[in-house]
Amino acid sequence: MTAFARLSLNTKTTNSWTLREAVQGAADAGLPAIGLWRDRVAEAGLDVAAKLVRDNGLRVSSLCRGGFLTDAGDGAAALDDNRRALDEAAALGTSELVLVVGGVPDRDLVAARARVAERIAELVPYAVERDVRLALEPLHPMFCADRAVISTLGQALQLAAPHPAAAVGVVIDTFHVWWDPDLAAGIATAGRQGRISSFQVCDWLVPMAADPLLSRGMMGDGVIDFGAIATLVAEAGYDGDVEVEIFNEAVWATDGRAVIDTMKRRYADLVLPAL
Amino acid sequence: MTAFARLSLNTKTTNSWTLREAVQGAADAGLPAIGLWRDRVAEAGLDVAAKLVRDNGLRVSSLCRGGFLTDAGDGAAALDDNRRALDEAAALGTSELVLVVGGVPDRDLVAARARVAERIAELVPYAVERDVRLALEPLHPMFCADRAVISTLGQALQLAAPHPAAAVGVVIDTFHVWWDPDLAAGIATAGRQGRISSFQVCDWLVPMAADPLLSRGMMGDGVIDFGAIATLVAEAGYDGDVEVEIFNEAVWATDGRAVIDTMKRRYADLVLPAL
Repeated sequence: MTAFARLSLNTKTTNSWTLREAVQGAADAGLPAIGLWRDRVAEAGLDVAAKLVRDNGLRVSSLCRGGFLTDAGDGAAALDDNRRALDEAAALGTSELVLVVGGVPDRDLVAARARVAERIAELVPYAVERDVRLALEPLHPMFCADRAVISTLGQALQLAAPHPAAAVGVVIDTFHVWWDPDLAAGIATAGRQGRISSFQVCDWLVPMAADPLLSRGMMGDGVIDFGAIATLVAEAGYDGDVEVEIFNEAVWATDGRAVIDTMKRRYADLVLPAL
Repeated sequence: MTAFARLSLNTKTTNSWTLREAVQGAADAGLPAIGLWRDRVAEAGLDVAAKLVRDNGLRVSSLCRGGFLTDAGDGAAALDDNRRALDEAAALGTSELVLVVGGVPDRDLVAARARVAERIAELVPYAVERDVRLALEPLHPMFCADRAVISTLGQALQLAAPHPAAAVGVVIDTFHVWWDPDLAAGIATAGRQGRISSFQVCDWLVPMAADPLLSRGMMGDGVIDFGAIATLVAEAGYDGDVEVEIFNEAVWATDGRAVIDTMKRRYADLVLPAL
């Protein structure tokens, strides 16, 4: 087992690469896994994408993303899209579909959150049939208005609670949760319940980028204590892949192979010792 | 009692005005109260400032700000500055000193939060002697790294808990807390304990401003449901002033009297009905 036996490249980190290039880059770097975004899969074609990762011996640690369940209408289009995403996840051989659940369409945050709960319940049977888990991702509260009304790990766990752990899990992304005073308790609970779908790492940059979406940094470039959070995740019993997902103009402008080299080094220095 | 009997102008909202202009503007607009920042007070001189607000019949709803207690050294300079701020609050006749407690100096968030707890305890006797309350302000989690490691109302209440309600309170600022899934419980607890030091209103703009500090909007210009939050605050028994504190380049570029007119109208439409 190498130092990188759990390290997964999320395709967003090497954003300029096609799926084929990302799969090749990950395999060449000796990584065992890749996290896929649906846009890259769609460009390649689902069957081609599934074959590509299989032929290169990669696990698919997660598929990103379903969600956007908060619109004030009947939600039928969103539910259809999520069912397609579950099918794609199954075809790609991953058990984890990451959900970014959507923002507040009309100032009524309580109602938006209630719709998320209802629509997750509608999706659960379809997910169970396909052996794919709905992985609820709490996003940083600065994205509550326009992207995800799930703002904390504790809240994600409350939404997951009515459903089996094999059907609804949670994503722990350091960028989104590092600030949370209740993080240790949330991670421990998620682990005890067997609900940790994914552990994603990237740093919080200071100052923030003008576009907060692009303020995710390479581990070590910001203020997050990866050792502390990785220790909590390890103590919670998580032994799955660790995905590196970075949205950052400077990283995206760097050659993908150099990005993977840096990512491996920083992972080995900052994350791995705690796992 | 007029519709504006609880409305307070924070001096940041009319940022281009001197203290004298802000006091005059608030008084001319029929407002009963003003929230002061220390920089404006210092420019005018403490005694002059105290006389100005007194002569114009204004309450000082709060003084902003003390805090910045997280540095990894002995904290002596910060404690001294907070004692001066408590003296200033007493001289200005306000019972509430708003604390922005400081960010993470060295990646160790747990230690930074522990220092905040210790240093608040050190300040409490001095605050009690002066009849001024340390008003802990949870800031939006996007400011956790560089400005305030208190990120939720629940966390602020935990830090306040060891101390009398007359010594340590909490600030409820809609911009910072609107997203919090535990907000209703936190406001109810804060009210029950008599710890609501200040209720500040301004909106969350979408998209955010490039500088997140300046992304605070006039009520009604963003996504916050002021009726819902004001209802929680009223039900919690709070009957103090409602401060409007807006950091926003466009608002700052507008004539102060026009800003106050808009602020009164939006307050009357969106906040007052719930109080």
